[in-house]
Amino acid sequence: MSDLRIAVLGVGMMGAFHADALSSRIRGSRVSVVSDFFADKAAEVAGRVGGRVETDPIAAINADDVDAVLIASPGQAHDEQVNACLDRGVPVLCEKPLTTAVASARAIVDREAALGTPLIQVGFMRRFDPEYVALKKLITDGGLGNPLLVHCTHRNPDVPPHFNSEFMIRDSVVHEVDVARFLLDEEIVSVQVIRGVATSAAPAGTSDPMIVVFETASGRIVTDEIYVRTGVAYEVRTEVVGERGSATIGLDQNLVVKTTDGRWGGSITPGFVERFGIAYDIELQRWVDAARTGTIDGPGAWDGYAAVAVCEAGVEAVLTGQKVAVDLGAPL
Amino acid sequence: MSDLRIAVLGVGMMGAFHADALSSRIRGSRVSVVSDFFADKAAEVAGRVGGRVETDPIAAINADDVDAVLIASPGQAHDEQVNACLDRGVPVLCEKPLTTAVASARAIVDREAALGTPLIQVGFMRRFDPEYVALKKLITDGGLGNPLLVHCTHRNPDVPPHFNSEFMIRDSVVHEVDVARFLLDEEIVSVQVIRGVATSAAPAGTSDPMIVVFETASGRIVTDEIYVRTGVAYEVRTEVVGERGSATIGLDQNLVVKTTDGRWGGSITPGFVERFGIAYDIELQRWVDAARTGTIDGPGAWDGYAAVAVCEAGVEAVLTGQKVAVDLGAPL
Amino acid sequence: MSDLRIAVLGVGMMGAFHADALSSRIRGSRVSVVSDFFADKAAEVAGRVGGRVETDPIAAINADDVDAVLIASPGQAHDEQVNACLDRGVPVLCEKPLTTAVASARAIVDREAALGTPLIQVGFMRRFDPEYVALKKLITDGGLGNPLLVHCTHRNPDVPPHFNSEFMIRDSVVHEVDVARFLLDEEIVSVQVIRGVATSAAPAGTSDPMIVVFETASGRIVTDEIYVRTGVAYEVRTEVVGERGSATIGLDQNLVVKTTDGRWGGSITPGFVERFGIAYDIELQRWVDAARTGTIDGPGAWDGYAAVAVCEAGVEAVLTGQKVAVDLGAPL
Amino acid sequence: MSDLRIAVLGVGMMGAFHADALSSRIRGSRVSVVSDFFADKAAEVAGRVGGRVETDPIAAINADDVDAVLIASPGQAHDEQVNACLDRGVPVLCEKPLTTAVASARAIVDREAALGTPLIQVGFMRRFDPEYVALKKLITDGGLGNPLLVHCTHRNPDVPPHFNSEFMIRDSVVHEVDVARFLLDEEIVSVQVIRGVATSAAPAGTSDPMIVVFETASGRIVTDEIYVRTGVAYEVRTEVVGERGSATIGLDQNLVVKTTDGRWGGSITPGFVERFGIAYDIELQRWVDAARTGTIDGPGAWDGYAAVAVCEAGVEAVLTGQKVAVDLGAPL
Repeated sequence: MSDLRIAVLGVGMMGAFHADALSSRIRGSRVSVVSDFFADKAAEVAGRVGGRVETDPIAAINADDVDAVLIASPGQAHDEQVNACLDRGVPVLCEKPLTTAVASARAIVDREAALGTPLIQVGFMRRFDPEYVALKKLITDGGLGNPLLVHCTHRNPDVPPHFNSEFMIRDSVVHEVDVARFLLDEEIVSVQVIRGVATSAAPAGTSDPMIVVFETASGRIVTDEIYVRTGVAYEVRTEVVGERGSATIGLDQNLVVKTTDGRWGGSITPGFVERFGIAYDIELQRWVDAARTGTIDGPGAWDGYAAVAVCEAGVEAVLTGQKVAVDLGAPL
Repeated sequence: MSDLRIAVLGVGMMGAFHADALSSRIRGSRVSVVSDFFADKAAEVAGRVGGRVETDPIAAINADDVDAVLIASPGQAHDEQVNACLDRGVPVLCEKPLTTAVASARAIVDREAALGTPLIQVGFMRRFDPEYVALKKLITDGGLGNPLLVHCTHRNPDVPPHFNSEFMIRDSVVHEVDVARFLLDEEIVSVQVIRGVATSAAPAGTSDPMIVVFETASGRIVTDEIYVRTGVAYEVRTEVVGERGSATIGLDQNLVVKTTDGRWGGSITPGFVERFGIAYDIELQRWVDAARTGTIDGPGAWDGYAAVAVCEAGVEAVLTGQKVAVDLGAPL
Repeated sequence: MSDLRIAVLGVGMMGAFHADALSSRIRGSRVSVVSDFFADKAAEVAGRVGGRVETDPIAAINADDVDAVLIASPGQAHDEQVNACLDRGVPVLCEKPLTTAVASARAIVDREAALGTPLIQVGFMRRFDPEYVALKKLITDGGLGNPLLVHCTHRNPDVPPHFNSEFMIRDSVVHEVDVARFLLDEEIVSVQVIRGVATSAAPAGTSDPMIVVFETASGRIVTDEIYVRTGVAYEVRTEVVGERGSATIGLDQNLVVKTTDGRWGGSITPGFVERFGIAYDIELQRWVDAARTGTIDGPGAWDGYAAVAVCEAGVEAVLTGQKVAVDLGAPL
Repeated sequence: MSDLRIAVLGVGMMGAFHADALSSRIRGSRVSVVSDFFADKAAEVAGRVGGRVETDPIAAINADDVDAVLIASPGQAHDEQVNACLDRGVPVLCEKPLTTAVASARAIVDREAALGTPLIQVGFMRRFDPEYVALKKLITDGGLGNPLLVHCTHRNPDVPPHFNSEFMIRDSVVHEVDVARFLLDEEIVSVQVIRGVATSAAPAGTSDPMIVVFETASGRIVTDEIYVRTGVAYEVRTEVVGERGSATIGLDQNLVVKTTDGRWGGSITPGFVERFGIAYDIELQRWVDAARTGTIDGPGAWDGYAAVAVCEAGVEAVLTGQKVAVDLGAPL
């Protein structure tokens, strides 16, 4: 069987990372088209991974040498690009967010549903991380009894200055939104954001850290500490507390060193590549394998839509200080 | 120097535990008088540890063979008993709560202040636990930079049925109230309680677990998961997140066993004696040493009063679902 | 570039595992020929992964549709098969042992050296395991100072009855032989085996566990506890102790669960696939990438020869109870 | 009951530590006499803990104001001092070694046996450490099945220059000798010492680290890494490997800190006081409680004798490079 020919739209950090994987570590795929607003960036990546440059992303989606599309362009471009994929009926892996507005995300969900085949996978890679998979299995197998609480910790060592409180919700907390929905298998119905004193590393007006509190449909509570300028490393930890036990992942304990300062310990994963590199590859391989049969294998359009809706409520919760309800409208 | 002669008022679980320590592990002390509402209980303990039985606790406080008083009676009795100690001017170690009402606790604070000598120590033993002491030192030494968040986890394997949501605040969360004040060295100014789905082990109407959120005077956030029917063991964990690092205690990792079910791990401390037994002994030894010189060495009346006030707000927060402000009135 | 066409010789557990990887997870390779003494086994694997069955392994090595060879047949067959690969000049990945005798292993080393191109890679997969790689890097970077001691622990939950003391050396300890040479970058010059009381699960006459002690050319000591019937799980742990610190890998701490028996802990990897699955895939991918350019990328014939020689001494040490010297002859 | 009046013989580091404990943390005891070869040192300690100075240790043992004796003088003085305690029939806690020669140690064992009452306790404090106690209980309860191997790690950050290989056996390894006998409940029958390359911090001719291998009467193997100039901290770790599981203590994981160098970890106990301070206090309290009734409560003369005999064999093993048998003579 010949390799799946993929158009990669957007080759910033994330898109370039995926393009490299698709052309080196993933089996059965190759990058046939690279598209980016910055032509030189597109040319550089195409030169490295193979494939031709196509300036217009919509033309890339519709090109004869494209079997599937990976969207890693800025979020504002997703709506048009995902719809173009639906127009042509090609499988797409869309990095979060699905779109930047609740209505447009819902419209995509409904349109795909009308088509009758899942074509849209959303890039929530944590669902493929072996630790999250083990945690999900533990819950599903009943090892913790009924889950009552989820505690998430999401820390970055540093971020660009434009990461304000609102951005932290849309770009960082969105992962915990999907993790909570994935682990608990139900929707989030409200969001509250607790803002305290900020690190002096944060720009004025940005609450970093914040505590985000989600409530699910059945009344479970999910807490998320989001702190993106710790100066430490990349720390993503999740604890689920159930009626018959609790479980934690993200403890990051592998090589343990004892040193002449009289200390023991190890390195924390410095960034998302070290922490979730394997999850990304598993995600890509499974998507490629599925796309070759015309479908997807992972979180879909509804998951992308729900995340957009919860984050929209989260941003309102940041601004108002109130608990904000999430309304997902009619179920599919 | 002869031993400090101590009256122990109330010999339920806690009082009996202290009476045993004072007569076996603590140096320089002996139990001279035992008092309890239940005469047989008092007789049993006095028979074991030495000392005579005195039915009337106020008479015990005023007895010639008493140099200091340890109050472990029910909370409702504390107001009268502590005031009797102030009347006589003897050092007292009073188990929490100082009293059961904000006004009476404040009155004691003011009265002791007028006397000019600290006589009242409140039994917040965690301040003597080596791990909390190390964490406090780490903060004070600047090892974490400015502390921004404190995350507390307080889990009991089981509690009696009368432990409803209100009781959980007054009897369990009260420890984290003091821990937060101790670690951060400032007052708590508001309390919010987040109630989610409860374990099926909880009586109807009791929210177990709950998430309690404190805000401090400088705007720091403290979260506390309180869950007292986990069925697991006694888990008390505290994480402080600062501008330049974070630190966690209560990880409970000592003897590690690998077993034929293919698992590695260890025992969690089953109860407060295993977890805080050494802290209790250090607390008692330091109080005894100080009491022999007519004073105290540990958290005082103001700490007891602040805890009563915060818990009172916490109970209102449980009942109303609102964030409730704490007003401590004029500083001393 | 078209896929590398690989002949897989021997599709027992290990060979079938590799055949599956080469046809699903590894990029740029496909299994073109499958050969096994058991025709039905060969047919089953070929049916699953593609490729044709060829009964004669030497014919498979010489077939027109074969670019490279993976040898996973029984050790006794390796000598003839590896030499056939050298005859034809095709890259080969040979599972340990290189051969079953010191002289034949050395002959292969010399013959390959005469050819002038490395063609033989030996399947010591631990060199590709991220933890071993990190440990090696720590040593090379000087993080531990001069390494003085290596402590290895190698435990299997269970093995077939034919795993006697001699077999434990050849089949299990051989991994630590290579680990020690890899980490310390020098040869082993003597072996001693300390036999104590055996587990009742061991057949009569088999010393399980044993302590194997290696000495290196520069006088470093390596200890290896080999215990293959623990009834627990698959535990491979290595600690390096240097002049300026020590480091340990294999601690196996990921998902941590607290359970209603009052215990905390996690699962130990049940077998080699869970522990070293990723290392095997990295090994295969790098070998495939190198083989497409006619060479290898990993431990070579000399490493295979040295392991055979050390294990031969180890077996003599088991039988005699003496410290046995290892003589590798003239360096290349 | 009045306090036990104790003569402390030798107030170097260890004796002064005990004198402080007996006069502050231990209940029911006081130091009545202090004796040391250095008069000023004796005066300084007596000034701090109370008690009078008595230059002659034998006079101290026989003084009217002495009920029990703690011997922390240099090892060469122990034989005469312990025998003087037996002459008078007072309980004694003797720091290791019991004596410096096998014959004199055995003579003491036999003489005490003839007296019919245990009077001599030897200061193997690890038997009172909560972790060793838990490990012993785990073994006794059958939690590991039949113990097959014990692995000990004993590391000091630094030692004085006179700590040569022989001294390392007598002063450091002696602890693991007792630990092995305590945990396995049987005698050691042979010792082998494996000497490799030494740390550059070691004086010429001193093998630091060494691997000591003990064999027990039933054929169990005990390995001990002794390394006393690690430059790191004080690390004492013990793993027992049994037929049905393994267990490790000394993992030293309490306060865990994450820091801006991207690392997680904690402090290793810097010295013996931090690691075994509680064990020493428990040891002293139990000895004091027992001595008030004229006896001991801990490892006795036989344990001290066995340790002397094993260490003597260990020193011969260091010097000869051979496995040396231990002969304890007739059992009591």
